[in-house]
Amino acid sequence: MADLRSDTVTKPTAAMRTSMAEAEVGDDVFGDDPTVIALERHAAQLFGHEAALFAPSGTMANQIALQLVVPRGLELLAGADAHVVTYELGAAAALGGISTRTWPSVGAVLDVEQITAMIRPAGYPSVPTAAIAVEQTHNLGGGGVTSLETLRALRVAADNAGVALHCDGARIWHAHIADGVPLDAYGSVFDTLSVCLSKGLGAPVGSLIIGSADKIAQARVLRKRLGGGMRQVGILAAAGQYALDNHLTRLAEDHTRARHLAEALEPYGVVEAAQVRTNLVPLDLSKAPLDAPSLAAAAAERGVFIAAMLPRVARLVTHLDLTDADVEKAASVLGELLS
Amino acid sequence: MADLRSDTVTKPTAAMRTSMAEAEVGDDVFGDDPTVIALERHAAQLFGHEAALFAPSGTMANQIALQLVVPRGLELLAGADAHVVTYELGAAAALGGISTRTWPSVGAVLDVEQITAMIRPAGYPSVPTAAIAVEQTHNLGGGGVTSLETLRALRVAADNAGVALHCDGARIWHAHIADGVPLDAYGSVFDTLSVCLSKGLGAPVGSLIIGSADKIAQARVLRKRLGGGMRQVGILAAAGQYALDNHLTRLAEDHTRARHLAEALEPYGVVEAAQVRTNLVPLDLSKAPLDAPSLAAAAAERGVFIAAMLPRVARLVTHLDLTDADVEKAASVLGELLS
Amino acid sequence: MADLRSDTVTKPTAAMRTSMAEAEVGDDVFGDDPTVIALERHAAQLFGHEAALFAPSGTMANQIALQLVVPRGLELLAGADAHVVTYELGAAAALGGISTRTWPSVGAVLDVEQITAMIRPAGYPSVPTAAIAVEQTHNLGGGGVTSLETLRALRVAADNAGVALHCDGARIWHAHIADGVPLDAYGSVFDTLSVCLSKGLGAPVGSLIIGSADKIAQARVLRKRLGGGMRQVGILAAAGQYALDNHLTRLAEDHTRARHLAEALEPYGVVEAAQVRTNLVPLDLSKAPLDAPSLAAAAAERGVFIAAMLPRVARLVTHLDLTDADVEKAASVLGELLS
Amino acid sequence: MADLRSDTVTKPTAAMRTSMAEAEVGDDVFGDDPTVIALERHAAQLFGHEAALFAPSGTMANQIALQLVVPRGLELLAGADAHVVTYELGAAAALGGISTRTWPSVGAVLDVEQITAMIRPAGYPSVPTAAIAVEQTHNLGGGGVTSLETLRALRVAADNAGVALHCDGARIWHAHIADGVPLDAYGSVFDTLSVCLSKGLGAPVGSLIIGSADKIAQARVLRKRLGGGMRQVGILAAAGQYALDNHLTRLAEDHTRARHLAEALEPYGVVEAAQVRTNLVPLDLSKAPLDAPSLAAAAAERGVFIAAMLPRVARLVTHLDLTDADVEKAASVLGELLS
Repeated sequence: MADLRSDTVTKPTAAMRTSMAEAEVGDDVFGDDPTVIALERHAAQLFGHEAALFAPSGTMANQIALQLVVPRGLELLAGADAHVVTYELGAAAALGGISTRTWPSVGAVLDVEQITAMIRPAGYPSVPTAAIAVEQTHNLGGGGVTSLETLRALRVAADNAGVALHCDGARIWHAHIADGVPLDAYGSVFDTLSVCLSKGLGAPVGSLIIGSADKIAQARVLRKRLGGGMRQVGILAAAGQYALDNHLTRLAEDHTRARHLAEALEPYGVVEAAQVRTNLVPLDLSKAPLDAPSLAAAAAERGVFIAAMLPRVARLVTHLDLTDADVEKAASVLGELLS
Repeated sequence: MADLRSDTVTKPTAAMRTSMAEAEVGDDVFGDDPTVIALERHAAQLFGHEAALFAPSGTMANQIALQLVVPRGLELLAGADAHVVTYELGAAAALGGISTRTWPSVGAVLDVEQITAMIRPAGYPSVPTAAIAVEQTHNLGGGGVTSLETLRALRVAADNAGVALHCDGARIWHAHIADGVPLDAYGSVFDTLSVCLSKGLGAPVGSLIIGSADKIAQARVLRKRLGGGMRQVGILAAAGQYALDNHLTRLAEDHTRARHLAEALEPYGVVEAAQVRTNLVPLDLSKAPLDAPSLAAAAAERGVFIAAMLPRVARLVTHLDLTDADVEKAASVLGELLS
Repeated sequence: MADLRSDTVTKPTAAMRTSMAEAEVGDDVFGDDPTVIALERHAAQLFGHEAALFAPSGTMANQIALQLVVPRGLELLAGADAHVVTYELGAAAALGGISTRTWPSVGAVLDVEQITAMIRPAGYPSVPTAAIAVEQTHNLGGGGVTSLETLRALRVAADNAGVALHCDGARIWHAHIADGVPLDAYGSVFDTLSVCLSKGLGAPVGSLIIGSADKIAQARVLRKRLGGGMRQVGILAAAGQYALDNHLTRLAEDHTRARHLAEALEPYGVVEAAQVRTNLVPLDLSKAPLDAPSLAAAAAERGVFIAAMLPRVARLVTHLDLTDADVEKAASVLGELLS
Repeated sequence: MADLRSDTVTKPTAAMRTSMAEAEVGDDVFGDDPTVIALERHAAQLFGHEAALFAPSGTMANQIALQLVVPRGLELLAGADAHVVTYELGAAAALGGISTRTWPSVGAVLDVEQITAMIRPAGYPSVPTAAIAVEQTHNLGGGGVTSLETLRALRVAADNAGVALHCDGARIWHAHIADGVPLDAYGSVFDTLSVCLSKGLGAPVGSLIIGSADKIAQARVLRKRLGGGMRQVGILAAAGQYALDNHLTRLAEDHTRARHLAEALEPYGVVEAAQVRTNLVPLDLSKAPLDAPSLAAAAAERGVFIAAMLPRVARLVTHLDLTDADVEKAASVLGELLS
């Protein structure tokens, strides 16, 4: 079976399991876990920030960060396809009371001028904009990478308007590998980032919120209220540290395989291979013979698992646990179903 | 002084004051006020719905309606400039936990295909869309009117997707007068409507939520939680009834005056007169010598009051309490300042 | 028919209607209504505070005040029978995210030591207490009056702990009349008060939030979000001003009548007349032949309306619109039903 | 150093680490993790319920359960010292919009009549009670155990009133051991339970929500919104399973040690040894020479760690990782400081 539903499906390797089994731990709610402290420090340094905080999921990491930068009743700007708006069960509004206005998504392509024009200043009867969220790489945008230049232009616009900038960096590692941009260059653009250890990097559980020491102190309170305060977290942090040390540069392989898959499926009119720069292969099924759930079901019967993201959008994801044979099989099964 | 900030500034006429002074009243929290009951029944009939509920403001009427059609954590689609998103202090998210995705506003022009494409069905990992809100006439859209044909096309799309349709009809009266569309034709398109008595119609206070008997029963509970349960409401309802009876058809005058104003200011490149169809005259100051707060301040010194809606957007509104001389004065003062 | 359900059922008198009909008004959202400004100033002065804000209901006035003094996620202490906890549809939690812990209610009797012991300081893992709310007079406590001495002792405890004190003073006027305590003496005890114009005072609609200039400025924002921003509010404010000028001292009559009613019903074991000090007569039906809904229904058939507050608690309220004959009728009908 | 701050400080044993290292895993968000599925099934069976769900913390498990049984704006009854009210950062109100009324806590002693009298039925103007929460064993109640008989009486009252019953069973294991009551007997009393694997049982991370299949399906959605959806959870579930298999019956030792400690400290007037039935030793410092933070700080300097729960309440907790020598040291250091 070839599982391309997500890079979250990867299982810890034997070596990663060993590092978990040997991790030194403590009660993290009391601030006593040396392994998680070390990982948080390491992650903060990677991105050039003061502090970081471990969270049980990317959703929680994003939602804590959004609550840090957008007071209840104020406004967040994000893309209409952003994960924080689309795939977190309405948590920003339901739990954080955050009002969202969205710009029309064109994948990872950001129109800085358009976004800037949407910012609403304080002092008018309208809801003031408190923050802007971008996603690097962009999930529904097919793993697209926003250039550092664009991000820096957005930072200037945000500074001019006095609004914060958050990065949903669940797969920022892939952008780093694809574009060769240092992580701290990304870090310098954002007030807060969330990064994920259990997607492409292959750790079983965990994300991190990254920001100033002051913000991370508040994040600790918000995490507890959301139920993300855990105890001997070092078990999980050890896996995260191992993943950072061993699985970061190999993401290039995932990118190559994704491009290969896209090239194999391009003839069926469902994907433009040249657009595939990281490990996500989005399938646009608007003109395909099957919709996304049907394609996913039919492929599953043939031992290939893919994700139905929307009625006419499916997604293939390459990752650590796939073999070349898995990728070939996926290409051949899907090609057959789409022809 | 000519006050063109809003049509909310109108003062009750002598005859309206008399009807308030003579209104039969009761305790509306106990359901005992005959005047408010009659007004609610009348408003429901006007729009061809089963029931209506009086609310102290348009914001509360909209927010109650949104809470009726969008369960906490689900999604509302609206224009990025919609009043419910922009001018209600983030209440949909802050109080209702409602997640919003917005389409790029082009005034009252609705791209039904674009909106339809944004609807997210249930059964996927994404947040399902529960409702769509439109605004008739459109406030930030310069009082633009959406055609009945377009609204009906949107209704079809909503029905196909199983989502509700809400109308922020604060100035739906103006659309009715401008396009000659019967109110119940509008009513037939929407699951819920909010309509306002204290804008163009000239009542001192009050809006109504309109919908099915079942929804209005729930609305009564939501209104009490929000603090909108009032007692001898008949005093206000009498003014609303008077306004419906006497101030509806005269809105045509406001439209004529607004067009006249727009024509006078068109030479300064701040408004397209042909776009002005109701009582709002939006001034696009992006290329003007003054921004909106400066223009408003300078005009105020000369006895003309206008609203600064956004840094480079100002608004003139015609209404019941303006004389021809007021309109002339506004045209001349603003013309001078913009030249 | 004798309506003793509540003092909210009173209808505006002819003179009050005249003052409404003649009220000078403006758009209160723009801060332009001279009558509401004068009333707010007057109310603030009465209680020795800097500022006040008109709200459409007592529920909204209380909820705005609670949001002013308790940040989301922090704690409010209140009596288990407090109106803010019991009769406002859960708004403190549902809209304000305010956590409540309650002390066991013994009517208006406050055990200052017990309440003080419940205060939780910041700096511990427990939720810190931000404010304490008391109710003067106490509704479910049968209109009981808390002594100024007790309130001052609570103020000392609150100051020692650094927590705020809010007064739900919907019927604080009755306490003022019953105990002869000046209103500004009450005012000096509390950070925020809500007071109601449409209960015993007989205005059709309206409550006020009273506090510091800074808090009232924030209250204006919270009121708009809740949908309490209204336009020509002077119509209602004029009634409130008239009520303050003309209906305050006459509350003594209501107290006398309530005591009279209680004496008439005391023989049936449902009320202790000596406890009835203001205009509420609570009926404890725990040993009565009928429960509250049945008693209310049977009395209604005989032309006497009373309120079923809880399954075994009913309430009679005396007010401006009752005649001596109404009170006699209520006593006789209820006596008959209870015997 | 002897760490008696909490039983959450225990570190996984070598054998537990081995079971984690060898755990079969999958992506639990996709429902693919066999180890977590087996643990959830096992836990459900232990308590005689249909289903269970893994959560990253006791706070999240409780909050999900409360959101399951109390609709937004309705009422939860709980003790004033309940963990769900006191130690979860106001989450019930802040995230769930749940209104709480509390009964005065007397540790684990429940006055069923008093609680029953607090239940508010629907159909009145008051906020209806939707659920009652109890805590077994009771944390601030010094580890006290509520008898099965009392719980059953409460169940009868809840059934009569049509309200749900939730058990915060973070340490229900200790009640089971102390009273010899089968877990499924407890399970039969409650609609929902939360139980914790990382307190006395010694697993590093994890709690479970237990209830009907229908409720647990909804819980899965609520968990995702709160950010509790994790991936290869089997790593943690394996530890939980190991803990259930190996660390349950040994809790008796913790109870014995706690009693021993209490007996040693009883002479200082800070604890009644006869009340100590499980693994918590509450110290009432209201008459002691030091307050809780001072005692904790002084003890820490001498190598004994205890928790300051409130200004005058400290807590000692016995657990898996303490030796007899640790307990002796704690008794002697604290005795010295308290004399």
